[in-house]
Amino acid sequence: MRAASWQDGRNRRVSKGLSVTETDRRPPPGRVTLTDVATLAGVSVGTASKALSGNGRMRPETRDRVLEAARRLDFQPNEQARALLAGRTWTVGLVTTDGIGRFSTPVLLGAEDALGAGKISVLLCDTRGDAIRERHYVETLLARRVDGIIVTGRRTDPRPPLAGLRDVPTVYALSPSEDPADMSVASDDEGGARLATEHLITSGRRHIAHVSGPAHHAAAQHRARLTHDLLGQAGLELSGGKVHFGDWSEAWGRRAARTVLRAAPDTDAFFCANDQIARGVTDTLREEGRRVPDDIAVIGYDNWDVMALAARPPLTTVDMNLNEIGRIAALRLLDAIDGRTVGGVRTVACRLVVRESA
Amino acid sequence: MRAASWQDGRNRRVSKGLSVTETDRRPPPGRVTLTDVATLAGVSVGTASKALSGNGRMRPETRDRVLEAARRLDFQPNEQARALLAGRTWTVGLVTTDGIGRFSTPVLLGAEDALGAGKISVLLCDTRGDAIRERHYVETLLARRVDGIIVTGRRTDPRPPLAGLRDVPTVYALSPSEDPADMSVASDDEGGARLATEHLITSGRRHIAHVSGPAHHAAAQHRARLTHDLLGQAGLELSGGKVHFGDWSEAWGRRAARTVLRAAPDTDAFFCANDQIARGVTDTLREEGRRVPDDIAVIGYDNWDVMALAARPPLTTVDMNLNEIGRIAALRLLDAIDGRTVGGVRTVACRLVVRESA
Repeated sequence: MRAASWQDGRNRRVSKGLSVTETDRRPPPGRVTLTDVATLAGVSVGTASKALSGNGRMRPETRDRVLEAARRLDFQPNEQARALLAGRTWTVGLVTTDGIGRFSTPVLLGAEDALGAGKISVLLCDTRGDAIRERHYVETLLARRVDGIIVTGRRTDPRPPLAGLRDVPTVYALSPSEDPADMSVASDDEGGARLATEHLITSGRRHIAHVSGPAHHAAAQHRARLTHDLLGQAGLELSGGKVHFGDWSEAWGRRAARTVLRAAPDTDAFFCANDQIARGVTDTLREEGRRVPDDIAVIGYDNWDVMALAARPPLTTVDMNLNEIGRIAALRLLDAIDGRTVGGVRTVACRLVVRESA
Repeated sequence: MRAASWQDGRNRRVSKGLSVTETDRRPPPGRVTLTDVATLAGVSVGTASKALSGNGRMRPETRDRVLEAARRLDFQPNEQARALLAGRTWTVGLVTTDGIGRFSTPVLLGAEDALGAGKISVLLCDTRGDAIRERHYVETLLARRVDGIIVTGRRTDPRPPLAGLRDVPTVYALSPSEDPADMSVASDDEGGARLATEHLITSGRRHIAHVSGPAHHAAAQHRARLTHDLLGQAGLELSGGKVHFGDWSEAWGRRAARTVLRAAPDTDAFFCANDQIARGVTDTLREEGRRVPDDIAVIGYDNWDVMALAARPPLTTVDMNLNEIGRIAALRLLDAIDGRTVGGVRTVACRLVVRESA
């Protein structure tokens, strides 16, 4: 049985003396090498390789002898050998620029799921936003002849293309490339803001405040602009007269809520550009005696479960479908590897997850 | 210049017609293959390989001809070819059983950091706790001849060894293997509980409640037992007379705090077995008019920044050093790959991060 022969096969040298009459002492299938096959068939390794891959010219008897040796030894060509023959390695590099964070994780999982379902393996590279690490990893991936690369990060701001890529197919996920000719998959930030704002307007809210992160972040800009425009189209103005830019924290949400309530006491809704801000806002509203959503509705962004579900009440929030962004990036990459490259940014729609806060 | 020749080299077929006088039209260094070298040298691929690796017998003139061809073409042997020659692939599989979660992420990063600093690449496999996916990935990793495997997950409970591993070196990180002969790296749960409990006792707290997760989780059991024992050694009892087991959520922390305050109004400290519970406890204490830490101290567990820093006040909490667990797992694996295998569980000490809540 195989369990026993695996033990016998631990010492690889055993296989060197194989002859046709010694097949009981053969090494386990996973450990038989091309050299073993070539030795048994009495040909060179190169000939054995050509015979097994079906490439290269040789006499039919030679090919038959190699195939017979492979059959006798139960030879299973390993992935490296296959890759050398096929010119593909069935590996894809996943480069993440900010550790494996809350945003890049679902993107990575979506990509890994789409790739791993086939026979492609994923090489993980965490550059931590460090240019030297990024260069090191690109070189490593090229040396390993990856079939393609997916790049992701935390921010939705465009990023410079990876340097030194040569012509390896590459897709940028969540953080699009600054080069419009590159393949990128981004979130539809404006669509997300539209879902939230329209939900508030159609449910009768008329004094809607918008609390966001840093004004220089693309996500904050896009969501703010769309919110402002949609309110204008509905004949409304931002409650408090402006977007409240700050940072992405609960503490900022708490402070901003107090500021808004003071400046515009008739505010009846908050659209917050992430769930942490929304949670800070709901905490302050509760402490100020305002009921959510009866007096004031609150909508967050990200659908980050630990924040959205622990908030009181649980948050209605925009979900960016990060898994889907990763999955689509992987599918575009597979197309590109097969020679069907279509550059440009493709956006993935968001969805509104309605819970109790709005 | 190379930039120009890369463009020329995009069509690989160009390289086939190379002759000694056509070196200006050579493909870029990364794209020259062993076949190109063999063709130019007029030898078989197998001979070219042997000549470049320094292995195998051949006439010195033949070896020189191959080396000269490689030099002319600026041939850089690729990693796959190197791996075939060396019997190593310089790849390690990282198997995570629960997606890339809050706990496995820092472990993965620590491992990736220790491995990636050298020339080892990391193949990411996310089994999502699914036995069929796990088996698929183990087979894939074996087919790719990884040098070793690191297995991690969310829970600190021991897990069954990976099935079908043959003799590939494997280390279990955070979730130790049930087989004591396997190599595992675990968190020192009891040491973590000791840090928290002793901090409370030495700062004069005498009525300490312990709120935890599900009683059947190893982490909850270990922390509860140690807390109970240490209090006993100090002549104290658990406030409320028992450990409050529940789940790992903020909502449970809020409920438990109310229960404890009702049953034991003189409670002057809470040791909570994670940061979400601790955050729920502090929210309830504030709403009940108790000052933290003046009236009641609170310590959490995990040092999960978004929870610990957003709590009011920011949480004093136990940090498991998950990065270090990953790093040590990687170093043990590297030792094992080099033949220095030492089985058994190694624990990594926790540290107490003191903020404002205790």
